[in-house]
Amino acid sequence: MINAALREIPEYIKGYGKVKPFEGAFKNINKAQKANVSLNCKSSNDDKVVSSIEEVLKKCGIRDGMTLSFHHHLRNGDYVLNMVMEEVARLGIKDIKVAASSIFPIHEPLVELIKSGVVTGIYTNYMSGPVAQAVSLGYLKYPAIMHTHGGRARAIESGDLHIDIAFIASPACDTYGNINGVEGRAACGSLGYAIPDAMYADRVVAITDNLLPYPLCPIEISQEYVDYIVAVEEIGDPKGIVSGTTKITKDPVGLKIAKLASSLIEESGLLKDGFSFQTGAGGTTLAVAAYVKEIMKRKNIKGSFAAGGITGYIVEMLEEGLFTSLFDVQCFDLKAVQSYRDNKNHQGMSASMYGNPHNKGAVVNMLDVMILGATEVDTDFNVNVTTGSDGFIMGGSGGHSDTAAGAKLSIVTTQLIKGRLPIVADRVTTVTTPGETIDAIVTERGIAINPKRKDLIEKLKGSKLPIMSIEELKNLAVKITGIPQRYENNGKIVGVVEYRDGTVIDVIRQVQ
Amino acid sequence: MINAALREIPEYIKGYGKVKPFEGAFKNINKAQKANVSLNCKSSNDDKVVSSIEEVLKKCGIRDGMTLSFHHHLRNGDYVLNMVMEEVARLGIKDIKVAASSIFPIHEPLVELIKSGVVTGIYTNYMSGPVAQAVSLGYLKYPAIMHTHGGRARAIESGDLHIDIAFIASPACDTYGNINGVEGRAACGSLGYAIPDAMYADRVVAITDNLLPYPLCPIEISQEYVDYIVAVEEIGDPKGIVSGTTKITKDPVGLKIAKLASSLIEESGLLKDGFSFQTGAGGTTLAVAAYVKEIMKRKNIKGSFAAGGITGYIVEMLEEGLFTSLFDVQCFDLKAVQSYRDNKNHQGMSASMYGNPHNKGAVVNMLDVMILGATEVDTDFNVNVTTGSDGFIMGGSGGHSDTAAGAKLSIVTTQLIKGRLPIVADRVTTVTTPGETIDAIVTERGIAINPKRKDLIEKLKGSKLPIMSIEELKNLAVKITGIPQRYENNGKIVGVVEYRDGTVIDVIRQVQ
Repeated sequence: MINAALREIPEYIKGYGKVKPFEGAFKNINKAQKANVSLNCKSSNDDKVVSSIEEVLKKCGIRDGMTLSFHHHLRNGDYVLNMVMEEVARLGIKDIKVAASSIFPIHEPLVELIKSGVVTGIYTNYMSGPVAQAVSLGYLKYPAIMHTHGGRARAIESGDLHIDIAFIASPACDTYGNINGVEGRAACGSLGYAIPDAMYADRVVAITDNLLPYPLCPIEISQEYVDYIVAVEEIGDPKGIVSGTTKITKDPVGLKIAKLASSLIEESGLLKDGFSFQTGAGGTTLAVAAYVKEIMKRKNIKGSFAAGGITGYIVEMLEEGLFTSLFDVQCFDLKAVQSYRDNKNHQGMSASMYGNPHNKGAVVNMLDVMILGATEVDTDFNVNVTTGSDGFIMGGSGGHSDTAAGAKLSIVTTQLIKGRLPIVADRVTTVTTPGETIDAIVTERGIAINPKRKDLIEKLKGSKLPIMSIEELKNLAVKITGIPQRYENNGKIVGVVEYRDGTVIDVIRQVQ
Repeated sequence: MINAALREIPEYIKGYGKVKPFEGAFKNINKAQKANVSLNCKSSNDDKVVSSIEEVLKKCGIRDGMTLSFHHHLRNGDYVLNMVMEEVARLGIKDIKVAASSIFPIHEPLVELIKSGVVTGIYTNYMSGPVAQAVSLGYLKYPAIMHTHGGRARAIESGDLHIDIAFIASPACDTYGNINGVEGRAACGSLGYAIPDAMYADRVVAITDNLLPYPLCPIEISQEYVDYIVAVEEIGDPKGIVSGTTKITKDPVGLKIAKLASSLIEESGLLKDGFSFQTGAGGTTLAVAAYVKEIMKRKNIKGSFAAGGITGYIVEMLEEGLFTSLFDVQCFDLKAVQSYRDNKNHQGMSASMYGNPHNKGAVVNMLDVMILGATEVDTDFNVNVTTGSDGFIMGGSGGHSDTAAGAKLSIVTTQLIKGRLPIVADRVTTVTTPGETIDAIVTERGIAINPKRKDLIEKLKGSKLPIMSIEELKNLAVKITGIPQRYENNGKIVGVVEYRDGTVIDVIRQVQ
């Protein structure tokens, strides 16, 4: 069948089940259910601290076929997923589904577990590195299910993604299971992505290298939700957890794109008192923040909030009074971690509060402007951030689709050409984010506004910005690169891209 | 049938249903379920602010038979319950169940609504004043159901108490439903009791007199849970919300009791580094805190936490470094409100985190010592704080049963005789808290230790404390007062006292 993003998808996918086709970004957001939760209660005399991962797996009744969840705040410094899965394998357990909010190169040991059948399924919002490659090459038994950050929260809370055991990598944890991310050698800041797991999993295990006396303060994840605690030597490598490298690009092309994007924001009329904003941690999007900051200062504009994964650059904007507060689901650098710990206007949010379409209003709904990246964009404004044009998985939505749907103005900033390939094409390899939620594509050569945004097009009449149609942008690119070879693939489905509401927006096929 | 507190209770109560008899304080705490939740999602374009209570009632589909919930942080200054119920009555709605975490004299207008059939049921953890009297006299159609603070959270989360519409009295609320209790003229501090309501009700309405631009900071109840917001002129009378009067008693009898209780704590061996503690706001229990503080300072003891409803006196102990942090479900005075707002070691907790027996471990489980009050105590150590010896309802458990069950040492402090009646009697009028969870009764004339606490009795051998049996205590009292007239009553059941696990520990009968 053909879904609303005009992708051909099967009605049934082996190892996934019946497909609910994507029907449009705003078709499926009226009513929702949050699942019931079964739990083992703890009384005064119960000791939650368990001596080893092996023992805690046994206490949790580990068995073949279970779904184990992990969160990705330790990013490419995370030891916990590998540590737990190594023990699961050692116990002879098979057929595990790994629900990790993101998967990074450090998780390479999963590849062997995939090949040996210990791991047969993956749910994730983003993956890069060897595991992504192994999935692309068809090693995983069942198709990987790719969520958005908000969609994962929705799936967990609704029961679509039922977690048997959640493992919470805990930079600080007390003896009764209160957890925070701001203390300890692996301090990573906000633990927003882990909160739905903690609230809805059957069993919740804190893995910590910083076991502290009761009670911890502050508490991000409460003792109410934690069954067991295991102390280990190290939960992660601080160098891989937070980088000091969220820096503004120095590349003149990147700067040009950023300048154009900031001018578009200014001309959109949204940049006024109360302005709200989200960027990623990439060099170009940070440059957009820098230009926006200049405008805000020049015009004496007081914004309301910035949200998302937070960088030191956004923290500086908070400290300079350009925003009244921040909503933080994940800290991208040390400065963000410190600010999250010390500044009460730097607030945490759960993945659900951030982007779940099935609650009473996520933070993304309140965004004025979102700056997004892209691997590919097509003439319907669909964006791919999931696969390369070679078909290999190299990312995933993360918050891309969530923020695009929520923000009043969703701007994709991208070079027109990367690695001799046109970024704007007739058809993206994979649709991550539907074009109906993308308002503008900003490249160094020109800006395309989504034709459905008649209001914005009207507002920009007379603008000096290099506005052109998306086809013109594409033709500009093709003139330089030539018409790219289409990567056609009818192979086995190795990935299912779920839109934030749980419908299927696209599938990923095995790289031949 | 006879339950485990040796009370005769029916197997079925009209207007309540089948009775699950109390089986013992720790019999029913292994496995639990949290209910699923149905919700209406909100998208970017939805406006949550509604112009009047009438309109919001209509938007929420108000109809006969619904359960409406309220929380009691505004205490005897609360305008919200009356305001909403007045409008419900004006709309001609009948048969409403009011689930208010506590009911105070200010809620007197409910009496007329009870008489006219607008209100036919009450769920509450505590009631005093005209409503309590009306219930005692049999005016309410169905028996009032009396919960504990933790038991109410349990009932809501499990679905036993299904709330159709929750009304959150909100000292500060932004336009997308983020709420806190620390800003505005009705600032009351922690909103802990309202959190289960917000998380589990079908519809959640914030009623505020302080509607602020998005986003609020800090956030105690998140936009994720709030459907609608109504701005009104005043949500409460600050004078009734927080008193400046949580002061230590000057009564020499009260001071003597407090001194004895503090000595008992010292001799119990629990008063050492890591000590944790909860008291109420009464003058005698605060005096216990004062004596405990003296000992801690003298012996240079660093406690871990104090919990509960928090008073300025406990805040001072935090500020002096006698505790590392506080857990606050409700602020009792202005000093507590300010500290909760400004001191990051003064943490909030939900009613569930505080005392729910059906989660993975409530804060009460971690208490060393709890100081409790009593209206009556019997020779089985059962405590009544629900009814007077005349049978009239004049209180309720609140956190009494929760903390008694959780704490390592639960001490009831009470005068031996009040108003010429013996407080220690053969049989309490109503069992609020079962004797098996009470470790000691401290009166000005002597201390009785529960015989089941053989360890404590052993430890106190050779103590100079006036330790005696509970029968001796009772006889001391009776010698002065004479044998009190037993209040015998086989009238209509007007109240059902649920223990924290949802079983029935006692019933309350109509005052003749």
